Amino acid sequence: MHNRQLRLQSRPKGLIAPDDLQLVQTPLHELKDGQALARVKYLSIDPTMRVWMAGDSYLPAVSIGEVMRAFGFAEIVESRRSDYKKGDRVTGFTGLQDYVVLDASANQPFQKVPKIPFVSDTVFLGLLGINGLTAFFGMEVAQPKKGETLVVSAAAGATGSIVGQIARIRGCRVVGIAGTDDKCAWVTKDLGFDAAINYKHPDWKAKLAAAVPNGIDIDFENVGGDIMNTVFGLMNLHGRVVVCGFISGYTKEDPNMVSLGTVIVKRLRIQGFLILDYASRFMEAATQLGQWKMLGKIKDRETIVESLEKAPEAINMLFTGGNTGKLIVKV
Amino acid sequence: MHNRQLRLQSRPKGLIAPDDLQLVQTPLHELKDGQALARVKYLSIDPTMRVWMAGDSYLPAVSIGEVMRAFGFAEIVESRRSDYKKGDRVTGFTGLQDYVVLDASANQPFQKVPKIPFVSDTVFLGLLGINGLTAFFGMEVAQPKKGETLVVSAAAGATGSIVGQIARIRGCRVVGIAGTDDKCAWVTKDLGFDAAINYKHPDWKAKLAAAVPNGIDIDFENVGGDIMNTVFGLMNLHGRVVVCGFISGYTKEDPNMVSLGTVIVKRLRIQGFLILDYASRFMEAATQLGQWKMLGKIKDRETIVESLEKAPEAINMLFTGGNTGKLIVKV
Repeated sequence: MHNRQLRLQSRPKGLIAPDDLQLVQTPLHELKDGQALARVKYLSIDPTMRVWMAGDSYLPAVSIGEVMRAFGFAEIVESRRSDYKKGDRVTGFTGLQDYVVLDASANQPFQKVPKIPFVSDTVFLGLLGINGLTAFFGMEVAQPKKGETLVVSAAAGATGSIVGQIARIRGCRVVGIAGTDDKCAWVTKDLGFDAAINYKHPDWKAKLAAAVPNGIDIDFENVGGDIMNTVFGLMNLHGRVVVCGFISGYTKEDPNMVSLGTVIVKRLRIQGFLILDYASRFMEAATQLGQWKMLGKIKDRETIVESLEKAPEAINMLFTGGNTGKLIVKV
Repeated sequence: MHNRQLRLQSRPKGLIAPDDLQLVQTPLHELKDGQALARVKYLSIDPTMRVWMAGDSYLPAVSIGEVMRAFGFAEIVESRRSDYKKGDRVTGFTGLQDYVVLDASANQPFQKVPKIPFVSDTVFLGLLGINGLTAFFGMEVAQPKKGETLVVSAAAGATGSIVGQIARIRGCRVVGIAGTDDKCAWVTKDLGFDAAINYKHPDWKAKLAAAVPNGIDIDFENVGGDIMNTVFGLMNLHGRVVVCGFISGYTKEDPNMVSLGTVIVKRLRIQGFLILDYASRFMEAATQLGQWKMLGKIKDRETIVESLEKAPEAINMLFTGGNTGKLIVKV
């Protein structure tokens, strides 16, 4: 039996080039005691993967030659561990590969997940995975008050789309920024955002200003760069900026440079956060998000890319605007 | 009787050029009822003046042709107002001029100040003026805890030097960043900072790292640019950045660009503030600062430049590192 793996061969410049991730076929050795083998079914494709390829950040960089790190959903196919049996379903850092060995002696933070009737397993990667948790705890950082205006960039992305819906639940006016008219239509018509602005329209800055007649109280920042600077210009005094990501900078050589003069003039508070700090509350958040989904208060959507080999292209889609909602590779 | 005024003639590019502020002599008209005439004695020279020359910010820009805005100390020499009598002493926006007319019908926020025995009147411009108040309320924003490490840039400046001393009172390890060895010696030997780093030494970054063995919990940011980015690299997880100013950017064409990637990785909180928001508590702060000075817990120092004509050069000194402590023009 063989395992296909995508290994990091070189650190990308800009978008991922064909040679940056190398597809290798390796034999799967017989399991030892204390090991279980899991078949990877779905891979979560996230902007932060590009950060892991570039260098050390909040996690160590993926080493050259190492299987590319990825969060995924897998099913146990064979087990010599007492805590896993065939058919168990798990999420965790599976990596970009067909199979992952779960070794009791390694400190792998896998979680068992249940089978939920009528719900796709991919929900554990999006709404009940990295993106839902990021949106949930990010909105705790934001502390939205009823009647405030929140702007979220990458609004039709897996995280942004949930952020906006939580903000609506909290009674905010919600304006999204996205890169196509279709995405804007989705977040306003299907998700209930009050407005959405396509930043590729030449007059988008004027449209954004018109969409926030009372200014912006909260910027949920996913993008950085020109979009962030434009939002900063419309912030109210004492506004809050929740920094989730800077995807506009991940594929650029220079770091995410932004103008901070406004921070003083408007007495802004900028707060970075990572869900790593909230690990003990993941179940609480997932329960709430699941309930909102059941009640129809939060809707999610997926873009599924078929087959492991397409994972590098899928990652690039995040930076070229190719996906709507959660981007997933079906292995 | 004549009044010399420095009027804004053109918006500076970089440092203030000789033609940017024009010295004009204008006649002083006889006072009307409801007016008082005050002789300007001392002018507070602050980096924010360069911001007022550039464009609208938290205050409207100084208009071309207008007397340059400045905070100053003045004494009433003639009065046709019931609320001022000859000899009264005031602080407020006097402007860069010899005399200022205090008109009851204009909304000029002047404050009467007392004569304090054995203390120079200039204390109302520095320790009990803009800088002391900025340091005091900035440290409230910072919420220092005993044992934390605070780094302050422009450490030998009027605000930075007080910030560091308040942090010492609060039980912090305090490291200053300044631009000469003399300034570093002043803040460590006279003011009690734990360490000070001259950022003009080639190996200053390594020295700064060595001076903060437990990392940096609070960055009191006065400078921006390379210094801020270097400090960011040494911040602890969940560190706080209090943004007071970005003097490294005020004389540059491009805005204060900083790299924000660290904000996510380290979950930093960046908070801008302005003392305008604390006006109702100025007396409380001044009382505390005055007490600390009396007890010898806070020391201040002044650089005095003689005569109004030198005010433009004095402003430039702030950006070339010419002053230690409070910079004042004696009119």
